[in-house]
Amino acid sequence: MTLSHTFRVFTLPALAISVGMAFAADLPARPSASDIIKTSKPSDWRPLDPANTLYMDLPTGRVVIELAPDFAPENVANIKTLVKEHYFDGLSINRSQDNYVAQWGDPNGETKPKSLGTAKAKVQGEFSVPITNDKHFVQQKDFDGYAPQIGHSNGFPVGRDPKAKTTWLAHCYGMVGVGRDNDTDSGNGAELYAVTGHAPRHLDRNITLVGRVVSGMPLLTTLPRGGEAMGFYGANEPHMPIVSVRLAAEVPEAERSNLEVLRSDAPIYQAVLEAQRNRGGPWNKYAANYLELCNATIPVREHPKQ
Amino acid sequence: MTLSHTFRVFTLPALAISVGMAFAADLPARPSASDIIKTSKPSDWRPLDPANTLYMDLPTGRVVIELAPDFAPENVANIKTLVKEHYFDGLSINRSQDNYVAQWGDPNGETKPKSLGTAKAKVQGEFSVPITNDKHFVQQKDFDGYAPQIGHSNGFPVGRDPKAKTTWLAHCYGMVGVGRDNDTDSGNGAELYAVTGHAPRHLDRNITLVGRVVSGMPLLTTLPRGGEAMGFYGANEPHMPIVSVRLAAEVPEAERSNLEVLRSDAPIYQAVLEAQRNRGGPWNKYAANYLELCNATIPVREHPKQ
Repeated sequence: MTLSHTFRVFTLPALAISVGMAFAADLPARPSASDIIKTSKPSDWRPLDPANTLYMDLPTGRVVIELAPDFAPENVANIKTLVKEHYFDGLSINRSQDNYVAQWGDPNGETKPKSLGTAKAKVQGEFSVPITNDKHFVQQKDFDGYAPQIGHSNGFPVGRDPKAKTTWLAHCYGMVGVGRDNDTDSGNGAELYAVTGHAPRHLDRNITLVGRVVSGMPLLTTLPRGGEAMGFYGANEPHMPIVSVRLAAEVPEAERSNLEVLRSDAPIYQAVLEAQRNRGGPWNKYAANYLELCNATIPVREHPKQ
Repeated sequence: MTLSHTFRVFTLPALAISVGMAFAADLPARPSASDIIKTSKPSDWRPLDPANTLYMDLPTGRVVIELAPDFAPENVANIKTLVKEHYFDGLSINRSQDNYVAQWGDPNGETKPKSLGTAKAKVQGEFSVPITNDKHFVQQKDFDGYAPQIGHSNGFPVGRDPKAKTTWLAHCYGMVGVGRDNDTDSGNGAELYAVTGHAPRHLDRNITLVGRVVSGMPLLTTLPRGGEAMGFYGANEPHMPIVSVRLAAEVPEAERSNLEVLRSDAPIYQAVLEAQRNRGGPWNKYAANYLELCNATIPVREHPKQ
């Protein structure tokens, strides 16, 4: 993951003389987010929990999804049942809508649906949950138009309403949710989507989010956009097949991904956010003093070899 | 362009009985943004100005870029010079960084740069301009963390500071900017980028935006991500070639795209925004009463045949 935001210009050599502008005085140098991450200690990182990590293996590679059972216990449980019974194996990605979502599940769901096995056909939506479900929230000080409070919980972007005492996951890039029809219990986790574009935050509290993609997003974002309404693939368009979806705990250890996530409740994380809120020179000329929730990066890395 | 945000669930038939939830009372039905657009009059749309429209033709199709000379007069003029002299023909897309930008220009710019012809090698950055440059601003009432005021001007997302009397284009999805090095005059328009992911608004007022992609974004967003730092393609990775970049005015009329943009200063546009700010039932269960700048859609369509 690259946090640097420098735009390299190929066509020009580096210029030795800085040309000042009245409206763009140079900012003092400051450590960047990636500079700060380089100073992290091993204890600032947490491994993914194999009991709450999914591997969606495509012919092109692996998409790793961290589940968030605190925010959607019933939906996550149903997805785990589907996965344990290998429901997704041989299904496909059926939708790619530009600047919105990729969605996967049963391509024949409307005509000849695959059996859900022992999983439930209806699971009540968990659009928000009691605030007490979330033990790991760390507030972000920035204003947000979609939620009274925002922050992170175990690396997930979160909105919360202290008056209503509710909390919910936010539709940032990479978040994974449960497709549904009009009824709030019409989803069951057999059809999932990942956000592949600008955060559609109006979906917050309207649909159940169950986790986020922590690795492999380009496998979803580079898929051809579907030619039918809402980016669904037509019958004659290729659908990316799903080889298998497995719970990490059910995969032999040697075949597991070895990822770890920067702890959002570690002090270093606040420094990472501040480095993104107020960037320093020499490239940056203006510091926003603001960080929108979905622009806050939660670093993920391969666990360093011992 | 699809404005509908319904998530179809394939695996379930439509359910006849609505199951109420304590926390998700049904919202009253309201016209959606696409419903409202269907009621538009021909005069609610404006054609693209051929003198300020670029066609970037790739082997895979055409990317149409509307330029915004009001916001970056010097940079737009230099780009037009480059385009008129066919500078971009035979160059390539050199960078695709996931959830960030695609960038194009001279792949050999650091070693054996192509001549810029009569274009300037240095153009002062136009990170913001006097508020008087912008005659078409219509304010959006929603709060924004990156700008004292936000709105749209001729379909471009805009931030402005009434105290400083400055205005600038905002880094929403699809916006096109001028790559630069550390110095504020180190860009010249020979290296351009388009935002392909969540809006990196911290770039606002740090780099010159010159326009936006109004058609063809998937040609950029589905490109393989580059394997080098910041998503640059390595020497052994394929670079998407640029067949040509032309000003629409210099293309025979029969070969021009026939697009029109909903006028952001027409009253209907405020209704479109309000429909996105407060969505109605039956799918939506919670109305945000907020619309983040980069979630406001500026509809573009083919001009209807007479």
